[in-house]
Parts: sequence; structure tokens; C-alpha cells
Amino acid sequence: MLVKGKQYRTIWPNKALSEVTIIDQTYLPFEFKLRPLRSLKEVVEAIKKMRVRGAPLIGVTAAYGIAIALIKNSSDKYLTEAKKLLIQSRPTAVNLAWAVNFVFNKLKKEPIGTRISLAWRLANDLADQDVKDNLLIGEHGLKLIEKINKPQINILTHCNAGWLATIDYGTALSPIYKAFREGLNIHVWVDETRPRNQGTNLTAWELSQENIPHTIITDNAGGLLMERGDVDLVIVGADRISIDGNVCNKIGTYLKALAARQSKIPFYVAAPTSTIDPNYMGDNNLFDIECRDEDEILKVQGLDASNNITEVKIGYSSAYNPSFDITPGNFVGKIICEKGVYNPRDIGKALK
Amino acid sequence: MLVKGKQYRTIWPNKALSEVTIIDQTYLPFEFKLRPLRSLKEVVEAIKKMRVRGAPLIGVTAAYGIAIALIKNSSDKYLTEAKKLLIQSRPTAVNLAWAVNFVFNKLKKEPIGTRISLAWRLANDLADQDVKDNLLIGEHGLKLIEKINKPQINILTHCNAGWLATIDYGTALSPIYKAFREGLNIHVWVDETRPRNQGTNLTAWELSQENIPHTIITDNAGGLLMERGDVDLVIVGADRISIDGNVCNKIGTYLKALAARQSKIPFYVAAPTSTIDPNYMGDNNLFDIECRDEDEILKVQGLDASNNITEVKIGYSSAYNPSFDITPGNFVGKIICEKGVYNPRDIGKALK
Repeated sequence: MLVKGKQYRTIWPNKALSEVTIIDQTYLPFEFKLRPLRSLKEVVEAIKKMRVRGAPLIGVTAAYGIAIALIKNSSDKYLTEAKKLLIQSRPTAVNLAWAVNFVFNKLKKEPIGTRISLAWRLANDLADQDVKDNLLIGEHGLKLIEKINKPQINILTHCNAGWLATIDYGTALSPIYKAFREGLNIHVWVDETRPRNQGTNLTAWELSQENIPHTIITDNAGGLLMERGDVDLVIVGADRISIDGNVCNKIGTYLKALAARQSKIPFYVAAPTSTIDPNYMGDNNLFDIECRDEDEILKVQGLDASNNITEVKIGYSSAYNPSFDITPGNFVGKIICEKGVYNPRDIGKALK
Repeated sequence: MLVKGKQYRTIWPNKALSEVTIIDQTYLPFEFKLRPLRSLKEVVEAIKKMRVRGAPLIGVTAAYGIAIALIKNSSDKYLTEAKKLLIQSRPTAVNLAWAVNFVFNKLKKEPIGTRISLAWRLANDLADQDVKDNLLIGEHGLKLIEKINKPQINILTHCNAGWLATIDYGTALSPIYKAFREGLNIHVWVDETRPRNQGTNLTAWELSQENIPHTIITDNAGGLLMERGDVDLVIVGADRISIDGNVCNKIGTYLKALAARQSKIPFYVAAPTSTIDPNYMGDNNLFDIECRDEDEILKVQGLDASNNITEVKIGYSSAYNPSFDITPGNFVGKIICEKGVYNPRDIGKALK
């Protein structure tokens, strides 16, 4: 998508297939900075520090991480070590483990001598597949947006499930980009999404670059807006979806789902099928809900009066910082994936 | 309550009855600063800028504002002008209009020569009454907390309805202070309460000063904590209560009420009867829900590396900043006021 009028993806390999370049998202919206990743260590650090984030993007980044790792050492032992380090870098999003395991299983069968080139091909294919899948999500989602018969369509989204969370186009934002290009009169309510402010930092920045009308709100405000009829639909991404439709997504998603249900507003989840966890069903969520450092709550980064990026301390007491919550499938209207639009309880069929 | 071991109220008159001193809450938790208010203009500014805030406290501050105003000019005309300016200073909390009208109606009947002394007496009485009412709220609320039969009682609160929102003891926090002093094992989940972070800035600071165990969370986290069984009850204050039990309170309160209902967790509102608006019933909320400046969302104040209070800009797009939402009475378990504990639909009886 566009950054200052120029097309970008969030990650791409160099011509020599020895490293990748990412958009370092920790500087947005203040600075648009590119960053090379040249070693497994740098890839793991970039995922942990959330220089790249978003379930689909960290999956693809991890696949490139394997390719970069193998340049140093293509042995089974090192491949296994790289797999482990990458999967552990962030525990909740299933796409990460999915992508790493997918690449690992193919490479394991490949002779050591040709592993490197296959690894780069697989990572590039995953990146391209993500772009194709997101375009399909956009097309399927557009049909749901078009059902809203109003002069202006107000869509609320939480966190960032835009192109910055993927390779391009995004998941939750893909139908919004599509609808805007089709000429629909769209306005987006952007939840700021504490503690890391991905709404303010990333979603609002993305929408600005594409000139899509939007307004930042606190995470607290969506309930009132829905009570007042100022929201026509809610669309969010996902980090993990159970085969019966429960959705693990950014902390606070569940509260918006409750409010949407109460105000009879459609609540949609958009994610590729790689987000569906075949081992996750009902309350059997045997995965970690990542808990991040309390400083994400107690410190805030912004621009000071001299336009320097500065961190300020805003709180003294200790804080607890879980990153995701679970929205039960019965609060989800539809799940939009590249294969089509599913009722949550039927989402397992998309894996077949 | 205690500040560094010394007892304080949030506002008090000088001995000469010519001015009041407030705790300037815009510097908390970074600096504990007192500020004199010496003119009507300074009182209005302090309320608008939220140097004093919280429905009960702004009511009493406005009453002192009338007393200060009359020193300059005790005429009917100026009294009416002062009333108007004070009521307009913040539109949503009914306690403000209630206190101003109460004082105005008494003073109107008083000869001009004795108006000033009566005005100070009325304001002092309102302050003392607030303290007494809050102690009673604490006693009534304690009985509800004692019903939780667990080794540790986890209470979630939103915004600040502690002693800083009142003259002393607080509304929602009064039962918590009481329970702690009775030896109950209490832990408080403090919603940070964006955009102004009253949870982080004020509630956590208050609880720290009283050594009550607490943890700051984002406004997004309460849903997950309730899903997990980590919250035993929710208690919040109110800015306006309809006579059939709808509660207008800090933006985001409604989302917590939805989550509490879903997880079958008691949701209580604590407020003095002056918060009940006899003209507000059902959906007939003919009052303004205050919308504050977008900079409250787009800028954040904290301490920089040199421990100076610094403001940083965190977002560029435009923002929309409504300050309150409405929780329908059927999501409220009980309303605790100085007269006792009421079912929301019966709260009008507390006015009789």
C-alpha cells in the first residue's frame, strides 16, 4: 500500500537473497524507517520487540528468518534450533508456528545443499500467498459492507489488522480498502488500542496514507458510539481462531464484541485460514496468552516539543499486561477468510 | 485520607473565609501540589481544567465558588451570573448543578448583607455532608464486599471515584477503604481510564498512599480478567443516575458492566443521592454528554528522563473524545448511596 504515494510491502528480500528489509513499526507514526534483518538473532529480536507485528506478518517474517538462518548453517540441528527460537519469540499468534512448521517440514526432507534456495522460495511464496489471500478477504468482506444501506458507513476496528499486520492489504482493513476504492462512503472509528496504541500509531497512519476518513477514539468510547447508533459494523483481525469459532485477538476485542451484540451491530473477524488452530476447540485454549512487560502500560512514547521521539513515564504502581483476550464464537457474526465467509461454528470447514 | 502519612481533604477554606485551597490533581501522581482559588474565575478554570474533578468534589467546589464570588459582589445579578458560569463549567455531572442550585436558592432569600457568611457556611456544610455521606457509603458497601467468600477479594474499578473525587473517603473507593481497615484481604484492579488516565494518575496514587494492594491494567483488560475469574466484583462511581437506575459515568464504564453481566460478576455503583437526577428517566437523557478536546487523546503527560513533567504528542489524526457513557440500569446490580443499598429501578425512592 501507499507510503507518501509510493507502493510498499511490509517486508521484502534483497536480490541476492541474503537478507530482508522491514518497515520498523516501532517508529510509526513518527518516522518511516526501514531496517535490514541479516541474522536469525535480528529476526527474533524484531518479532519480540514488535518491529514487525500482526499475526500474518510475523508468520512470514519467521519464514524468512529460517531462510536467513540457513545461510549460516544448513544442518538439521541448526534448522531445529532456528524453528524453536522463532516459535518462542511470540507465543499467541498461531500463524507464526504455522509458517515455521510449514517451512521446517518441507526443508527437513530437502538435501542440505539445496535447502537455502528452497527456504527463500518458500518464504517468498508465503509472502505472495498472504497478499493474494488478503485480496480475497477484501472481496469477500466487501459484500458484507455493501449490505449496510446508509449514506455513510461507520466501521469500528480495534488494534491494527491492516497492511502493516500482513505483507500487504491487511485482513480487517482489506475489505475497507476495497470498499473505499469501489467508491463507498466509508468512515473508520480507530480504537487507539492500549497499551501499545497500534490503532493510533499504525491503523490511523495507514488510513491517512490512503486518504480514508477516520477518527481515533479511546478503547473506552466504542460502547457509547454503538449505543448511539454511530457504528454500523465492527471488523477486527485475529491471532488464533478455534475450529468452533472462538477468536483470540488483541486485548479489548471481547469488550467490543459484547457491545456490538448488545446494540445488534454486526461483528466480523477477518483472518487467513492459517489463523485457525486445529488443536483449539471450545474452552480448550491450551496456548499461552502472552503477557508483556508492564512498562508498555507505564511508559508512553511520543514526540516532545522539539519533535524528538521521547518516552515518558506515566504511572508508578505495578501493572499487569495481558495482550489478548478470547471472544466466544457466539459473539462473532461472521469470519471472513480467503476461502469465503463462514459462520463461526463452521470455520473448521475452511481447513478442509 | 493520607498523603505521605498526613491527613488531607481535597478542598478546604482558609480561616478568614476568603479563599479555598485545593489539591491540584493535574499534577498527580508526579507532584503533590496545593493551589489557592481566590476568585470565581479561578474556580471555574479549576473545574474546567479538571484541577478538581469527580462529581461530588466539583459540586462542593462550585459551592465554594459562589462564596468566593459574593465577596466581590453580593448582588442578585452577580449571584445569578456566578451560578450560570459554574453550572456551565462542566455539563454532565448533576452534582454540580445540584450544589449550585441548592446554595443559590438559599442565598436568594438571604439579605445581601449576610449573604457572604451564609454562603461560606453552606459550602462548608456541603463539604462536611459529603464526608459523612461517603462514610455511610463505605459502611453499606462493606456489607456487599463481605459477601464475597474468598481468601482474596479482587475488585475492579474504573476512573477515580476515590477520595480525590470527593471531599474525603470517596464513593466507589469508600467501601474498599472500609473493607481494608476491617482487615479484609483486598486487591484492586485499577483501569487506567483513558484518555486522562485518572486510574493511573489518581486511583493508583490514592491506593498507594493508603498501602492498599492494587495493579494497574489497561481499559481493555477487564474483560479477559472477568472471563478468567480474576475479578470478584466491580464498583464504580457515577456522574448522573436516572430515577430508574441508568448510570451515566466515565466513558468505558458500560463496557465493564457488559463484561460483568456476561461473567456473572456483581456490578455496583456508589454515589450520593445528589447524583440522582429527578428529571432523568429511561432514555430521556436530556443532558449533554461532555465532549472534551481531542488533545486529551492525542497528547500524554508524563515524566521525562530528567524527571520533568513533559507532554508528548502520540497521534496525528483527528480524535473524538466523549467523556461519559450510559450503563442501563438492568446491567447494574446495586446502587450504594448514603441512605443504603438500592436496586437500580428503585433508586428514585432514595430521593424521598
